[in-house]
Amino acid sequence: MGEAGRHDRELRERAERVLPGGVGGHLSTRLLPEGYPQFYVRGKGARLWDADGRAYVDFLCGYGPNLLGYGHPAVDAAFAEQLARGDTLSGPSPLLVELAETLVAQVSHAAWAIFCKNGTDATTLALMVARAHTGRRKVVLAKGSYHGSAPWCTPVPAGTLPEDRAHQIHHRYGDAEDLERAVRAAGADLAAVVASPFRHDAFVDQSLPSAEYAARARALCDETGALLVVDEVRAGFRLARDASWRQLGVDPDLTSWGKALANGHALSALLGAETARAAASRLYVTGSFWGQAAPMAAALATLREIRGGDYLERLVHAGERLREGLHAQAAAHGYVLRQSGPPQMPQILFDGDPDFRRGFAFCEEAQRRGVLLHPWHNMFLCAAHGDAEIDEALAATDEAFAALRRREATLSAPAALAGLLPRH
Amino acid sequence: MGEAGRHDRELRERAERVLPGGVGGHLSTRLLPEGYPQFYVRGKGARLWDADGRAYVDFLCGYGPNLLGYGHPAVDAAFAEQLARGDTLSGPSPLLVELAETLVAQVSHAAWAIFCKNGTDATTLALMVARAHTGRRKVVLAKGSYHGSAPWCTPVPAGTLPEDRAHQIHHRYGDAEDLERAVRAAGADLAAVVASPFRHDAFVDQSLPSAEYAARARALCDETGALLVVDEVRAGFRLARDASWRQLGVDPDLTSWGKALANGHALSALLGAETARAAASRLYVTGSFWGQAAPMAAALATLREIRGGDYLERLVHAGERLREGLHAQAAAHGYVLRQSGPPQMPQILFDGDPDFRRGFAFCEEAQRRGVLLHPWHNMFLCAAHGDAEIDEALAATDEAFAALRRREATLSAPAALAGLLPRH
Repeated sequence: MGEAGRHDRELRERAERVLPGGVGGHLSTRLLPEGYPQFYVRGKGARLWDADGRAYVDFLCGYGPNLLGYGHPAVDAAFAEQLARGDTLSGPSPLLVELAETLVAQVSHAAWAIFCKNGTDATTLALMVARAHTGRRKVVLAKGSYHGSAPWCTPVPAGTLPEDRAHQIHHRYGDAEDLERAVRAAGADLAAVVASPFRHDAFVDQSLPSAEYAARARALCDETGALLVVDEVRAGFRLARDASWRQLGVDPDLTSWGKALANGHALSALLGAETARAAASRLYVTGSFWGQAAPMAAALATLREIRGGDYLERLVHAGERLREGLHAQAAAHGYVLRQSGPPQMPQILFDGDPDFRRGFAFCEEAQRRGVLLHPWHNMFLCAAHGDAEIDEALAATDEAFAALRRREATLSAPAALAGLLPRH
Repeated sequence: MGEAGRHDRELRERAERVLPGGVGGHLSTRLLPEGYPQFYVRGKGARLWDADGRAYVDFLCGYGPNLLGYGHPAVDAAFAEQLARGDTLSGPSPLLVELAETLVAQVSHAAWAIFCKNGTDATTLALMVARAHTGRRKVVLAKGSYHGSAPWCTPVPAGTLPEDRAHQIHHRYGDAEDLERAVRAAGADLAAVVASPFRHDAFVDQSLPSAEYAARARALCDETGALLVVDEVRAGFRLARDASWRQLGVDPDLTSWGKALANGHALSALLGAETARAAASRLYVTGSFWGQAAPMAAALATLREIRGGDYLERLVHAGERLREGLHAQAAAHGYVLRQSGPPQMPQILFDGDPDFRRGFAFCEEAQRRGVLLHPWHNMFLCAAHGDAEIDEALAATDEAFAALRRREATLSAPAALAGLLPRH
């Protein structure tokens, strides 16, 4: 049905020749409706432009990094100013210290920071610190949660060994009893409990954890001496200005951060409580670009906006307006659209759509009308989603619902998802 | 003896509070002479400025990323121009395709590319591709070679498990017979042979491999069906404009690249031969910032300089002038300075200095005179090391040798290195 523009298709053909399987990872459009552009040439605020010159209101936000708006003036000015002085030098700049101090002041549980590049770096470091701290091996994780794409956590096992996932025990996210069962199964060998701030798994409804679940995780770690790790890479600073579980009254020992930390500039971090400092200081972990000064300048500027601005209230406001609008439109067109997760990180799934044919067709129709939604992954609001952008998006989605209704008889299951969907 | 400046010392004290153990990883000065600055505020060309305003001719070059000079005008202009259009978007930019095409055209063995951020990402990917391609587990590495700081390769075991290093077999770098022994030990389970372009291990003389060693590695992989991986992260584009072993007549199946690929901007890559394409396409590997467009623009500009300019001849010329100058000065002052490795990536070690007391004192005296050398890690030349910079450096090192001679009676072994040095 839909088809990407000519330039995008030409780029895909070239990409097939020089990238294995074409564009890979989370930026691949292989699991998205066909019309979605694979390549973008420009971003500003909440908008993207594809290689064929088509403009979009974007609710993917780079899958998280875009928190304040693409090309945010203050953030990018701070980045550019530091880049002109120096970025990757033979040692860090003083901004390393300033940024660590800023995060320690802002995130309640944190006494120290280690900066890295990938979110996966930070989640891997969390496991290393927990194992060094406890001298133990086992890690309790939630089944289906995404914590990166290193051999120990990539959701696809190709190229990995069973040893890469040794000593992992899984539980059902949000289920305090099942968490306790998993912790008991680890016996005296438990190094860490790892959880996302909320359940933001692909293909399923999102769910916020209860305060009881978070408190049980904390209590079980306190009881066993294991470390409590919350992986903030995707949700960090979109739920709160502090670590996400502070709202639930729980302070983790370690939190991993990335994506939005420098509003799109390459930076991630592990933050840790005092108790884990000695263990963290024994690790040897580093990367060629971990000392880069310019992304740290960008992070400091991002954190100034986070502390001093109303970005979070704007995210929530925009997310609520989008949610209310979609809800009304869906009902008017005779659909039940399940909207889960916090409004600023919404998941939209159609009722009665086990093979995602409706979700794909709806998103495809929205994309053709200049709005980028996601049919099976949580989306992201940014502070540049103002009323005008939400109004524009809702005008397009209303037409998309109508188009979906017209196509109901001819919808077919997206072949790309075959074999990937969770069983019901 | 030496002491860092007041601002640097104050920053270190602050760093101790908010970073575990202070600045970590390869950028830490904990294993360097005391006077070395831990923080830098500016870099330009081959020069660095520390937080106390002292200027240096820098032979560390960010430990590799600085290939063409800090703040290279053409590279940074390309970066800034793309940043203004868009960097971390909801998909890659067309530059992804252009960069992959450029590398495939430039690096003989390469048919495809995957882009990532850390050098460690690229070396980890190499192992994953080799294991996916062969369906086997074992990897033959050189003892003491550095391939990154993930749990499978960090030189310090804190926080890692024995399982992280499962199926690794070590051999002596450069020893074709020992390589064959290791390959035979893997039996039918060999996935890959991994080697650096030359032996650039810390604390020891560097050595270039013989053509026979490289050819044996290739032949053993061909015979067993394993993949030959050359880790170019540190040496890539400093030995050649192609993959380093092309000069030895050997084409690897996989090469990992990082550091200098975008002249200091955060980008790494795995390049692969056609034979490994199908396996690479089956992996799920990604990172929040792997699609960033601005570092790809910087890499394209860097590769234009690499292809079209005389950067490599200038690196070699500067390295040879430094080497000849140091050789003559050492002899004049009654020392034997062993200078190993290619001139553009030199290691300098004093004869009769098993605990590095001379090396430390010499580097400390050079640092006090405005030249950053390294007493136990290979150094790096960049294209901004012109005759003026080398002359300036040699004037300082001549005085440093004289100062070393005056201090001979009072030198003591650097305490920081205790327990780290290889046994002789």
